[in-house]
Amino acid sequence: MYDLLKGLTIVEAAAFIAGPTCGLYLAQFGAEVIRIDTLGGGPDFRRWPLAPNGESLYWEGLNKAKKSICIDLARPEGRELAQRLATAPGDERGLFVTNFPLEGFLSYERLKAKRDDVICVRVMGWADGRPALDYTINASVGVPWMTGFADDERPVNHTLPAWDFITGAYAAFSLVSAERARRNGAGGCEIRIPLSDIAATALANFGHLAEVLTTGRDRPRQGNDVYGAFGRDFAIRGGRRIMVVAITARQWRALLQTLDLETAIGALEGELGVSFAGHEAVRFEHREKLYPLFEAAFATRTTAELAPAFEAAGVCWSEYRTLSEAARDERLFAGNPVFGRADQPSGIDYPVPGSAATLIGKSRGGPTAAPKLGAHTDQVLAELLGLSGAEIGKLHDARIVA
Amino acid sequence: MYDLLKGLTIVEAAAFIAGPTCGLYLAQFGAEVIRIDTLGGGPDFRRWPLAPNGESLYWEGLNKAKKSICIDLARPEGRELAQRLATAPGDERGLFVTNFPLEGFLSYERLKAKRDDVICVRVMGWADGRPALDYTINASVGVPWMTGFADDERPVNHTLPAWDFITGAYAAFSLVSAERARRNGAGGCEIRIPLSDIAATALANFGHLAEVLTTGRDRPRQGNDVYGAFGRDFAIRGGRRIMVVAITARQWRALLQTLDLETAIGALEGELGVSFAGHEAVRFEHREKLYPLFEAAFATRTTAELAPAFEAAGVCWSEYRTLSEAARDERLFAGNPVFGRADQPSGIDYPVPGSAATLIGKSRGGPTAAPKLGAHTDQVLAELLGLSGAEIGKLHDARIVA
Repeated sequence: MYDLLKGLTIVEAAAFIAGPTCGLYLAQFGAEVIRIDTLGGGPDFRRWPLAPNGESLYWEGLNKAKKSICIDLARPEGRELAQRLATAPGDERGLFVTNFPLEGFLSYERLKAKRDDVICVRVMGWADGRPALDYTINASVGVPWMTGFADDERPVNHTLPAWDFITGAYAAFSLVSAERARRNGAGGCEIRIPLSDIAATALANFGHLAEVLTTGRDRPRQGNDVYGAFGRDFAIRGGRRIMVVAITARQWRALLQTLDLETAIGALEGELGVSFAGHEAVRFEHREKLYPLFEAAFATRTTAELAPAFEAAGVCWSEYRTLSEAARDERLFAGNPVFGRADQPSGIDYPVPGSAATLIGKSRGGPTAAPKLGAHTDQVLAELLGLSGAEIGKLHDARIVA
Repeated sequence: MYDLLKGLTIVEAAAFIAGPTCGLYLAQFGAEVIRIDTLGGGPDFRRWPLAPNGESLYWEGLNKAKKSICIDLARPEGRELAQRLATAPGDERGLFVTNFPLEGFLSYERLKAKRDDVICVRVMGWADGRPALDYTINASVGVPWMTGFADDERPVNHTLPAWDFITGAYAAFSLVSAERARRNGAGGCEIRIPLSDIAATALANFGHLAEVLTTGRDRPRQGNDVYGAFGRDFAIRGGRRIMVVAITARQWRALLQTLDLETAIGALEGELGVSFAGHEAVRFEHREKLYPLFEAAFATRTTAELAPAFEAAGVCWSEYRTLSEAARDERLFAGNPVFGRADQPSGIDYPVPGSAATLIGKSRGGPTAAPKLGAHTDQVLAELLGLSGAEIGKLHDARIVA
């Protein structure tokens, strides 16, 4: 953990990926992040994959480094407690992350009534409040019909919930930005981040929407080809596949050199009356003529031969690996300083990630485990709401908290 | 544009998606973001898709709302100017975003020598400095073998560069967090964000790494099925496909009700001795028995029949659409308050996105266009470096700037 955000206290009432990753990233940068967990946990508390002891590996990954107060959110007293936590007084409090519905006991209107300058970051499905998940938004915006091969009639979903992850990081960015503005006298606000708008803006931001509107048609499916450049997957000797991309002229030259293709490519350039050494799109336009040359060159080479030459020349490439193969890559996981050890609820000892960012000039503390539900109930009630031991005891007796 | 970050000046020297989206998000929240563009533009300046007038729809999407100073980065004087801009004095300056190499004229060491508390956010390929792109990192970490159908022998790339987009948002979060820490007296730092670590931590954060390490094997490819829940694509009457997901018990009940499947599902529960009304994973485990019932129910229904019932019941669903079909959805693009109009370099009038976040209680200004290369050269030299008109003239004469 780093301490960039130390002093900030964020309250989180969220399930699944977008909200919890927002809280996770804030916690990994040193903020105190307090989850409001309902009795027995929320809808994601036992999400697969599970550890042998029944704890969720999903939940404990997403909720590392946070505290947990356990409240019966089905009861009015519990809901009121949640509202008070989200709007706790103090310059560095009143910072709330949630995926609870727009209208309801955690609405902005209700929170603002308790604390006028509360900052509420609300991740959502559709902008108008209709429910959605990463997978349904993805279908909605056209990505499954862009993914995969032209010879397949089926749409292809992402297995990786990319929109959730983008939303979580963007939510963390939004919260810290709003806190800065509040400190400068701008007051609070609610920041609504719908998956639908994250997806719509992303596709527009890199020109895809404009392209479709101006050409009047969709880009055809192109398998593993990188659009507008030279990049695709190839089989190497032995049958494994690699992904290779040459974006810059320098990377292209390096690729030709490594594969001994300079002469053959020169001949093709002469035949077609083009130069592949300039704009990357020329290689894309003529890729059907380029690919056979590369396929033949790769088919006779192994990774052992290719890797050193590629690395020396700065070619962008990778073998296709499964996650279990990647898991054995020390540079990625077990030997990666980003990863460490923590006593997770599952009781399993595996490499646990800290922040994806590495700060030069700051010291990286080890990762911190996820909490057990309600591990910090009493502490949070005392510290954020100033409740006495007796008041806290009454809440436990009434089973409003656990 | 919102004004949460007004007052901050960020200098950006970056190409492609991760660095530029970081700058874009900062600009959309009101920071002044100044791109250092080399003469004629960088490697992404003419990236496809192009507009009829040759401008890149990709570049102008990613670089909206920024300023541009054009410097000959091939020359020592130009490089020194870039260093001075990145380290310009002032509390709200000395904030730099780049994807330039670790070692080189924009290394942290060189920048720190000019301004000790400079904050430098550096997006990277591999953590050790080796080059990589979204598509090669994706292959490296196992996602193409998780994506797609079990009956396909080919790995399936993402067309959407998800790692790039996550990295850009995370970079923006890191920058504002570090700026907060610096304002609190913590000094500066370099923040290195490799795509490789963004990917490795993401896969670990939602339990995938732990699962693979503890089970010793990869999750099998599962097409469009959502892991651990009830969710998949179905064909409806007329042949279109929809994606439907039921995560909570309430969503499950709503689905059964809408499709008149309560009796059939009840019978199946009796036959199998399970209840599908509880933990979502039970539906996942028995999905091969559930799917035929749903397939039959969907095959006789149209969107016109399903949509109102689904919406009323809060079911998570979507039709699979292409992007050109989605482009006609007013709620997503043209009628979406997130989008507006701007005079882009392409000269084409299309819906241009502002921030994906909507701030309640703040007013959203319209989106701002991308700059022409060097549109702000003189202004930036005067404002950030305090150069006089004569000094600026000399730089132009010597073609160090344009």
